[in-house]
Amino acid sequence: MANDIDGAPVARHGRGRRPADEVRADVLHTVGDLLLRRGLTGLTFECVARESGVSKTTLYKWWPSLGALALDGYFHGVQDTLAFPDTGDVRADVTTQLHQFLGLMTTTPAGRLLAELIGRSQTDPDLAREYRRLYSSGRRQLAADRFRIAQRAGQIRSEIDVRVVIDQLWGAMYHRLLVPDEPVNADFVDALIENVFAGITPARP
Amino acid sequence: MANDIDGAPVARHGRGRRPADEVRADVLHTVGDLLLRRGLTGLTFECVARESGVSKTTLYKWWPSLGALALDGYFHGVQDTLAFPDTGDVRADVTTQLHQFLGLMTTTPAGRLLAELIGRSQTDPDLAREYRRLYSSGRRQLAADRFRIAQRAGQIRSEIDVRVVIDQLWGAMYHRLLVPDEPVNADFVDALIENVFAGITPARP
Repeated sequence: MANDIDGAPVARHGRGRRPADEVRADVLHTVGDLLLRRGLTGLTFECVARESGVSKTTLYKWWPSLGALALDGYFHGVQDTLAFPDTGDVRADVTTQLHQFLGLMTTTPAGRLLAELIGRSQTDPDLAREYRRLYSSGRRQLAADRFRIAQRAGQIRSEIDVRVVIDQLWGAMYHRLLVPDEPVNADFVDALIENVFAGITPARP
Repeated sequence: MANDIDGAPVARHGRGRRPADEVRADVLHTVGDLLLRRGLTGLTFECVARESGVSKTTLYKWWPSLGALALDGYFHGVQDTLAFPDTGDVRADVTTQLHQFLGLMTTTPAGRLLAELIGRSQTDPDLAREYRRLYSSGRRQLAADRFRIAQRAGQIRSEIDVRVVIDQLWGAMYHRLLVPDEPVNADFVDALIENVFAGITPARP
């Protein structure tokens, strides 16, 4: 219940129309929640309409496909868990964030969900485009923003293309997720960070 | 035409049975060649039987599925291109090999082929197992062998887990292949190598 400028309560719920942004945020919250509990299995427009109280017509208007709805919901569902802290120490912050990502991949259906979406997108150009538009490009941008702060602070060499570092940390995790020859675990995360921050060659004399 | 111990020519072709290993190698060569020219499209047991002159019964005996035949053929088809040189300088050798891999991915159907196989394997556990058994685990082993030589030569720190470095070079390339937010090109390859060999932080004073 919000107050208008005269201090009188303004009914936002139950009576009249709720603002579209608010309804949309509620739907995304519902979808993110469903995905993190149950994965893609059983996600349908019907069940999202039922759980969110929003008509299927409205859902179709905002999200033309189930893939788009799932990706948008997932992006919003993980944004708090995968936020980049800024304590002033980029290596510590990236370590925190990658361990959060590891937890999401290993203790929720998120790993399976992402693997299936990337898998299907290899033969479905529409899904591939939506995956990049609604999920991966946004996630890359957030990581790049944190690395550029670190470059300005002199913690990462200025000539480094931070977009490449993203593939060597998160991309390496996706690689083991998609082709599981080796496990995705805390030792792996720590080794990824050590290698790319410190380099694998002996210290210069 | 080989010679037996008395120096008399021994007919291996045309008359009698050829050794199974030789027939098998011929089939793999045929399949590797077909895949690098045309990709997975149109690859069938019928067409391999026709091009190699080996009966479908024999092909089915050796390769229970088209996926297994394709993966085995592809592994053999790329082994010369993707061989690891050993000039004594691991960074130079890895640079050579990664540029060969880049060429394969960008100028042949190999990139699309690998992306489709990894994609399908997300929802096909048999294919996933065959992919690892017949392709990716063998490729990882070859890279690890070259890095371990470098560790013994003091060119890579002895405490580095070289399996992780593999995900940060080849895995990072697969990541951009599968989720093409950013391009796979020569600059990317060179940056991957620079980052992981030298580290992204400023040189220690």
